[in-house]
Amino acid sequence: MAIVVQKYGGSSVATPEKIKNVAKWVIKKKLEGNDVVVVISAMGDTTDELIDLAKKITEHPDKRELDALLATGEMVSSALLAMAIKSLGYDAISMNAFQIELLTDGTYGKSLIEDINERAILDRLKEGKIVVVAGFQGITEDGDITTLGRGGSDTTAVAIAAKLKGECQIFTDVDGIYSVDPRIYREAKKIDEISYEEMLELSSLGAQVMHSRSVELAQKFNIPIYVALSCSDIKGTYIREVEIVEQKPITGIAVSDSDVAITLQNIEYDTNLLSDIFEAVASKKINVDMISQTAPIHNKVNLSFTIPKDDLRDCLDVIKPYYKKDEIIIDEDITKFSVVGLGMKTTSGVASRIFKLFKQNDIEVKMITTSEIRITCAIKQQDKMKAVGLVAKEFNL
Amino acid sequence: MAIVVQKYGGSSVATPEKIKNVAKWVIKKKLEGNDVVVVISAMGDTTDELIDLAKKITEHPDKRELDALLATGEMVSSALLAMAIKSLGYDAISMNAFQIELLTDGTYGKSLIEDINERAILDRLKEGKIVVVAGFQGITEDGDITTLGRGGSDTTAVAIAAKLKGECQIFTDVDGIYSVDPRIYREAKKIDEISYEEMLELSSLGAQVMHSRSVELAQKFNIPIYVALSCSDIKGTYIREVEIVEQKPITGIAVSDSDVAITLQNIEYDTNLLSDIFEAVASKKINVDMISQTAPIHNKVNLSFTIPKDDLRDCLDVIKPYYKKDEIIIDEDITKFSVVGLGMKTTSGVASRIFKLFKQNDIEVKMITTSEIRITCAIKQQDKMKAVGLVAKEFNL
Repeated sequence: MAIVVQKYGGSSVATPEKIKNVAKWVIKKKLEGNDVVVVISAMGDTTDELIDLAKKITEHPDKRELDALLATGEMVSSALLAMAIKSLGYDAISMNAFQIELLTDGTYGKSLIEDINERAILDRLKEGKIVVVAGFQGITEDGDITTLGRGGSDTTAVAIAAKLKGECQIFTDVDGIYSVDPRIYREAKKIDEISYEEMLELSSLGAQVMHSRSVELAQKFNIPIYVALSCSDIKGTYIREVEIVEQKPITGIAVSDSDVAITLQNIEYDTNLLSDIFEAVASKKINVDMISQTAPIHNKVNLSFTIPKDDLRDCLDVIKPYYKKDEIIIDEDITKFSVVGLGMKTTSGVASRIFKLFKQNDIEVKMITTSEIRITCAIKQQDKMKAVGLVAKEFNL
Repeated sequence: MAIVVQKYGGSSVATPEKIKNVAKWVIKKKLEGNDVVVVISAMGDTTDELIDLAKKITEHPDKRELDALLATGEMVSSALLAMAIKSLGYDAISMNAFQIELLTDGTYGKSLIEDINERAILDRLKEGKIVVVAGFQGITEDGDITTLGRGGSDTTAVAIAAKLKGECQIFTDVDGIYSVDPRIYREAKKIDEISYEEMLELSSLGAQVMHSRSVELAQKFNIPIYVALSCSDIKGTYIREVEIVEQKPITGIAVSDSDVAITLQNIEYDTNLLSDIFEAVASKKINVDMISQTAPIHNKVNLSFTIPKDDLRDCLDVIKPYYKKDEIIIDEDITKFSVVGLGMKTTSGVASRIFKLFKQNDIEVKMITTSEIRITCAIKQQDKMKAVGLVAKEFNL
């Protein structure tokens, strides 16, 4: 029998009614002749509520104890789902991190998975049971509970699928991956399949459907991920190795308004100085994204980079030693506009088509960075919708 | 260093504020130079809330999954208490049933404890940590979660104290054991110490402070239990082996209004018939308490017994074959009045003193049963307060 690992997110199991509904869909998959493992998140906002509870005890909860606390959320939902399945007449069993021996590297709050005792799961599947695994949690060699951090349950599901050589299905509150966020561009098309690399670029650019870590893990073990809407038959999106043959040049567009651009004008052209500046910024754990630097004129350069808006004050503090007051320009009117596509590897001229389109339509490009499969431009926020529409039409997204 | 095992009940940790307060008292015990293990119940009504949640999934939740669900309540409170202690600058660690390897016989919902890995606890104590154990939960050999049933956290505490040869302190919302429930007899005196046997009799008669199982366990391993009010210095009560020398004849009084007496008149005097009747009643899991039977006259006897009021209808159904309609008397005006005291073993005449007192004060005694350390009378409910007052004064309780 084929093994299918299904993951249901917190919004899919937010209430007892929703859990009962998930039970029906899980059973349906079982009745199609599969061995089914379900990985489940905590109900609705449980994790946030537990964090709030911890904060009422102390502003800075001990990390070990916070993980022990948060792990209970998935223990609750997994026990409830197993109950629901059994009440419908099918055999099921909930399993927590101790029971499947999901070993981690022991970093509280953002552990990496080191191993899973697949026998524990396989034995229960062989008994005909649907195995309901509490996601997001692991244990250390010493038996301490650790959690896997943001997107943790996705990672649990992918890791189990990799161990059991099964299919991985991620059920969530969107019905697949779109070429553009449908809230921004209503005619956006759903993508049938997308490569791991493209998905990783889109995730890191703010497409929230899948967390990068689980996609990286799936890529490492070559596990296809199917992303679809919970409890529905609507066709979703496969994330998997994609043949580049006849690939469209662009698969998706991502936009983000949450950055600000800082430009230091006429600073000394000195690589030590540049590395000092970025080290200072990094010391505050501020995530620098786009960086551009003009060619030196009379040994002076202009240096621009973008950071999250929330970090602006911190950033200005740490770079104060490196500029004079009239040399700095802060531009908050920034939208990061990115196109991603494996096809760019083989299709030349994508960048020039986009820039031509922008020029013809008076869209100013403030900064540009590129990778092998991505082009990102900083544009004015007022141009965002226009840019999305133009590029989506041009590349038939 | 002496090892002290403290247990705090659900009402003592019902809110984050209360948990922080418990943390202070735990630390105080540590600073007095003890190694401290804390056993903790779920916060407030958490267990009931989790049961309600399960009932929303299905009327009859699977027992394994219900136990897995309920065990999360104590995992939450133990993590929060460990956080609270650490935030006050003292080292602490929460431990669940997997982590202390509290093995049970595997009966879901009412497991018996088989073993505890005391090394897991002792090693953490040696590191200077306060160990906060999630009460009420255990695991089977196969790693399934089971719970210990009503009074389960008390049992966890006594079992750990027995394993570690430590002192056991049960903190609750009453400040000790009283000779009479102070809500019934305001001048009731607190008992400094009470024997296991007496406490067991009082518990089974409705004194709710300690559950019988934990007292039995303490008796078996000769572990003294100190029962006192949470987070206070008010002197509580020791439950322990008591020397009978100069023992008062009576230690305590318990009363209960929750029974009804059934009398079958003029039934055939036939031991087979009697055993048939009580077997029929037992088959419905109805708890028969007092039984009395008159001497046979012309081979006919009157048989009286008491059962919980709630079971009356069920009971009448099953004993229907054994009586004719005009032969049954149902008396709902029953108070069970019990006196308990180890001293009765050596002091004669306790019963006659009580009966004389009742006779002088027009208190009708409807039924009587006795054990070696207990006398129970069924009296009219209107006589309850009078009887308590008279006996309490007579025996200086």
